[in-house]
Amino acid sequence: MKNIFLVFSIFLFVHVHSARAYADDGYRLWLKYNLITNQQNLDEYKQSIKAWLVEGSSPTMDAAKHELRIALDGLSGSTIPEVNSVNGDGVLLAAAYRNSKLLAGIDLKSKLEKAGSEGYVILTSNINGKRVIIITANEDIGVLYGVFYFLRLLQTNRDIANLDVVSFPRIKLRMLNHWDNLNGTVERGYAGFSIWDWHTLPIYIKQRYRDYARANASIGINGTVVNNVNADPLILTQRYIVKLVALASVFRPYGINIYVCANFDAPIKLGKLKTADPLDPQVRQWWKDKVKEIYSLIPDFGGFLVKANSEGEPGPQDYGCTQADGANMLAEALKPFNGVVMWRAFIYSYDPKDRATQAYEEFKPLDGKFEDNVLVQVKNGPLDFQPREPFSPLFGSMPRTSMIVEFQITMEYLGQGTSFVYLAPLFKECLESDTYAKGKGSTVAKVVDGSLDGHSLSGMVGVSNIGADRNWTGHPFDQANWYAFGRLAWDHELTSEQIADEWIHMTFSNDSDVVEKIESIMMPSRENVVNYMDPLGLNMIFGYDNHYGPGPWIDYSPHKDWNSTYYHRADSLGIGFDRTATGSDAVSQYYPPVAKEFASLSTCPDNELLWFHRVSWSYKIQPKSDQPLAERSGHTLWDEICLHYYAGVDSVRSTQRAWNSLEVKIDDEEFRDVQMLLEIQENEAVWWRNACVLYFQTFSKMPIPDGLEKPDKTLQYYESLSFPYAPGTW
Amino acid sequence: MKNIFLVFSIFLFVHVHSARAYADDGYRLWLKYNLITNQQNLDEYKQSIKAWLVEGSSPTMDAAKHELRIALDGLSGSTIPEVNSVNGDGVLLAAAYRNSKLLAGIDLKSKLEKAGSEGYVILTSNINGKRVIIITANEDIGVLYGVFYFLRLLQTNRDIANLDVVSFPRIKLRMLNHWDNLNGTVERGYAGFSIWDWHTLPIYIKQRYRDYARANASIGINGTVVNNVNADPLILTQRYIVKLVALASVFRPYGINIYVCANFDAPIKLGKLKTADPLDPQVRQWWKDKVKEIYSLIPDFGGFLVKANSEGEPGPQDYGCTQADGANMLAEALKPFNGVVMWRAFIYSYDPKDRATQAYEEFKPLDGKFEDNVLVQVKNGPLDFQPREPFSPLFGSMPRTSMIVEFQITMEYLGQGTSFVYLAPLFKECLESDTYAKGKGSTVAKVVDGSLDGHSLSGMVGVSNIGADRNWTGHPFDQANWYAFGRLAWDHELTSEQIADEWIHMTFSNDSDVVEKIESIMMPSRENVVNYMDPLGLNMIFGYDNHYGPGPWIDYSPHKDWNSTYYHRADSLGIGFDRTATGSDAVSQYYPPVAKEFASLSTCPDNELLWFHRVSWSYKIQPKSDQPLAERSGHTLWDEICLHYYAGVDSVRSTQRAWNSLEVKIDDEEFRDVQMLLEIQENEAVWWRNACVLYFQTFSKMPIPDGLEKPDKTLQYYESLSFPYAPGTW
Repeated sequence: MKNIFLVFSIFLFVHVHSARAYADDGYRLWLKYNLITNQQNLDEYKQSIKAWLVEGSSPTMDAAKHELRIALDGLSGSTIPEVNSVNGDGVLLAAAYRNSKLLAGIDLKSKLEKAGSEGYVILTSNINGKRVIIITANEDIGVLYGVFYFLRLLQTNRDIANLDVVSFPRIKLRMLNHWDNLNGTVERGYAGFSIWDWHTLPIYIKQRYRDYARANASIGINGTVVNNVNADPLILTQRYIVKLVALASVFRPYGINIYVCANFDAPIKLGKLKTADPLDPQVRQWWKDKVKEIYSLIPDFGGFLVKANSEGEPGPQDYGCTQADGANMLAEALKPFNGVVMWRAFIYSYDPKDRATQAYEEFKPLDGKFEDNVLVQVKNGPLDFQPREPFSPLFGSMPRTSMIVEFQITMEYLGQGTSFVYLAPLFKECLESDTYAKGKGSTVAKVVDGSLDGHSLSGMVGVSNIGADRNWTGHPFDQANWYAFGRLAWDHELTSEQIADEWIHMTFSNDSDVVEKIESIMMPSRENVVNYMDPLGLNMIFGYDNHYGPGPWIDYSPHKDWNSTYYHRADSLGIGFDRTATGSDAVSQYYPPVAKEFASLSTCPDNELLWFHRVSWSYKIQPKSDQPLAERSGHTLWDEICLHYYAGVDSVRSTQRAWNSLEVKIDDEEFRDVQMLLEIQENEAVWWRNACVLYFQTFSKMPIPDGLEKPDKTLQYYESLSFPYAPGTW
Repeated sequence: MKNIFLVFSIFLFVHVHSARAYADDGYRLWLKYNLITNQQNLDEYKQSIKAWLVEGSSPTMDAAKHELRIALDGLSGSTIPEVNSVNGDGVLLAAAYRNSKLLAGIDLKSKLEKAGSEGYVILTSNINGKRVIIITANEDIGVLYGVFYFLRLLQTNRDIANLDVVSFPRIKLRMLNHWDNLNGTVERGYAGFSIWDWHTLPIYIKQRYRDYARANASIGINGTVVNNVNADPLILTQRYIVKLVALASVFRPYGINIYVCANFDAPIKLGKLKTADPLDPQVRQWWKDKVKEIYSLIPDFGGFLVKANSEGEPGPQDYGCTQADGANMLAEALKPFNGVVMWRAFIYSYDPKDRATQAYEEFKPLDGKFEDNVLVQVKNGPLDFQPREPFSPLFGSMPRTSMIVEFQITMEYLGQGTSFVYLAPLFKECLESDTYAKGKGSTVAKVVDGSLDGHSLSGMVGVSNIGADRNWTGHPFDQANWYAFGRLAWDHELTSEQIADEWIHMTFSNDSDVVEKIESIMMPSRENVVNYMDPLGLNMIFGYDNHYGPGPWIDYSPHKDWNSTYYHRADSLGIGFDRTATGSDAVSQYYPPVAKEFASLSTCPDNELLWFHRVSWSYKIQPKSDQPLAERSGHTLWDEICLHYYAGVDSVRSTQRAWNSLEVKIDDEEFRDVQMLLEIQENEAVWWRNACVLYFQTFSKMPIPDGLEKPDKTLQYYESLSFPYAPGTW
């Protein structure tokens, strides 16, 4: 035993030592599998896991084996032997129940029924009188998910003495959407080129593709749409389908189905037809043939995601048809192969009375008109991934339609690649919103997981923040958002804190001081951004097109609703968009209890105030104990706006201080990267604050409250800034 | 002692072990510093280097310390202590001589004189009766170069028993040119996005910038031009200069000066002047002010590279001035700060009689007209980085002008990102070409290093193949081309074999079987590509614009000289470009012995045959014993063309076999990456061969020689292929 500890202490030395040469670059994400440094945990785990055994053979079981091998060896710093029988205490056994001889004597029926097709059971038990840990499931993929769950217990130093776990996903389609173009750029991507190297596929299979699949499987993501919703029809050509085949082969063992975005005009652009009219028999046949061609090569192809009649994309309305007509045509083609259509509800005409009401107006009447393999994919809010939006009124309003919620993991409007923002609270805020569709408790989560209206098809989609940057996401903390998205898609009842806690343990350290401190800066980080960008329900006041930095003065787009002024409507009298009955009446799209709350100035939450109401500068904010910054209420609206902007900057600065205190406890490269990025964020926060306060002051004509530092640049200066090469826009 | 070996064996175990989880991704380039596996070498080195000492303090000496620390510890697998005095045998001492107290008693005058400002001296010696290894130099940067040289000895397992080395660079400016755009794309880049993240500079200093500087310093590169020659004027704005400052600070300790490409119209585009006329006083003043602004922030700024009046770029000829007028205006502005102008000779008008003669015609008359801080930068061949070109006749023709040779490390015309091509033989072929400018022995190398005409300014430039791909260059073997470029810029007398040998040892293994086998496939790899793309002096028959794949049929460009047909001139009578006196007379631009050799069909080397001559399909190739494939001579030209194309494919296949035999001896990820890329290359070689043979056959009307496999696709098929997203073109 003494010798073994000698080994570990030397290993530790060498490890720390070599880290000095080439530090942690973040590539391994939350699957680092570094040696466990807590000696007590290490001892305990080594007692409990003296050997491991994977029963059964398949690509998925091979993936489980691979993961156990690298993880157990890495975590323990030794070789935990793989065995082929339970010949002593302390065997970790992973097997699909129906293929297992070793588990045949153990009754797991009720647990396995609960686990379903993707879930798993983990149990401390006995086989032939020997103590074992069992990871089992109905299907191989469940076993793999269970393996990742179990490894997470070790990575986070949890107790594994008496395991009795059943876990299964709440949502069927847990999916990433890559807005990746075929030329390698990523729309709204802030982490480098696309990870898909289309040029060298199908032959060159990058290790990164496998590691992508591993990372996704580790959090339960089971689908990926590999190309941009602004879809190039070329993805549907034979040449690209062959490339999709290669990717699908890498993803398959990890339980991930591949999907593509289809261009609605593909029958014209590829098939040389004269129309893409969804009611045209030739068009319908073209899609059937194309789908058949795809499935002949990718039998587990997932289906199509379509952005139609939106921002210049073609769609069924070009032919006088409804969105449902378009979706159903594709659904019919996919149905024989169990494929699905994900049809985006993100549509708007330019210059509407209120852009926020359009998706509802268009789609609500179509409820019940979609084929049963269509899901309508709805962004979390009525507009477009703002730092804060109320939930979309479509949730709960289409009971006869399966629905996907679309979140944006990439941070187009939340600081892009340079801001420290933990998004789980944003996701949770939406999921926990109560639509009141079927009375109290009809949360968005229940709409989306299908339970509210009894749909078996359900989905949660995240617009990916992944790029070819070595650490996948550019900002090291953006890894947490990928992680949180997957974890919530599996179980939306997890709290933001639980997820942060897991992720910090796996990514940075099991040192409780580190975990607590990082969690303490992650949790409020999204609200910080709201405060210095878009407080009190403001929205859409970003830099033109690139959405980088503040642009509340933008008023030069020919499309009214591409102007910031359309959204904030500031003038000498006040600010805000009247969405009550006296205005666009967007409130009426919500169920009565919600509509009523939003419609009244006195009950509307402060954080949505200017979303729903036009308010005078001197209006006194009402005290509401459950609102953030409530202690400041009683101020005028103008003062409150200023205080929020300043509070946002202050919070970034306190985040910096907290981070700096961790210097000695974090890998040097990761520490410095975040430190520098926080410096950029602080600059950007001040830029946002100054630009917005100065701009809105031209209307309010009121002074910045006493005691707050005055902007050191003029409004003219801020308006003069331009960023032709801001990332994510080409 | 026994304990120490225990440590090593355990380390080795853990290392190999953890490599299984995350294999070698190539990021560390040739600076891996893995534990030395040859026990005898390891013992010997540990005896010779028991401690190390860096005397003196500066950012450059700190860089030397950092490198020694990580390298010695990594290579030895233990901590070699840093000491502050020579208190026993076996101290490695690094110090600039003039700052060293310890070296004061040792007479190194003659060696240091020879070493000059950048060279170094390495010596086994004694101090106070103690055995030491001394790395010294006149300047700190020389010490750093010496450290890298010394570490290379260890990495390549050389004998270090009795060192007596003086080394210094032959060429003053040893430089990379990045064709990187400010939006992050790289023109002709095949390794992902630009490594420069302009958006997050100057605050976010990526570790990669430092590792870039380390890698360059390790091979003696001392300058870098960070932006594309098709230059965006924005690089010269205050906003970007501040970003350059940040990069310059990272590069400075490593002896690397930063340069930028200047857009000739910057005074108009940035300065709002009405002209960029180089003789206009306001324009001259604008450049002087701009240069002053840059030097006030970057005192060691290197200067400007300019592509003027070429492919649509603005230049002095727009104002009726000469190229020299333009260069001299910038030179005048840079002169007070010791900056230089690198002025590209790559110019051509569209539709010329012979594009290959134009640079000479334009620049030769300007010899003697350039300021003495101007270097004329000339591509290795008269055209544009073809797989083979004769050397440019400008070399040797402008004795009163300092000259830079520009090589392309990125492989625009040699298989781009997917081909295994070692470029040192191409570089060497040019450098060793004899211009006969001052009689026999007037090699291009002597022109370029300044020795032929007594210039103290001299330069060698490589168009970078570096991108944000994790392994920097995309294809693992492209690292060798970066390495070879730097090594030859330092010492052009090194052989391709020597350089390959060093690189393989450092990159893959010190196992002699591995080294020999890899060297055996690297050495002919460039000729293989010539054979299946452009044999016998063919050139410029690439895919349109993207230069990907074969396009001998291209004839649709409005610019005659953008058509392949302009270059190969195939018809029913024969093929080739007559550049003798009966044609464009390009041969007359060479000195008589060279001109004579090229001009005669009987003496012109086979590998330049169709470059200089128009030859009938049935012409019988003359036997020439010093030409490759000479054993086949006596064939008709048509047969010879076919045999070369087929030989090229065969060689790729034998490369594959050789590589596959190394499977167990190479890191798994690197092995598989190269294996897959070779499969792509084999496909592409067959594509080139079939497409070209079928195309030229439409003119020759002659059969493919017996015994050669027949193309399995039609010419029409090959002509139909299109690659809108081939990399490097946007």
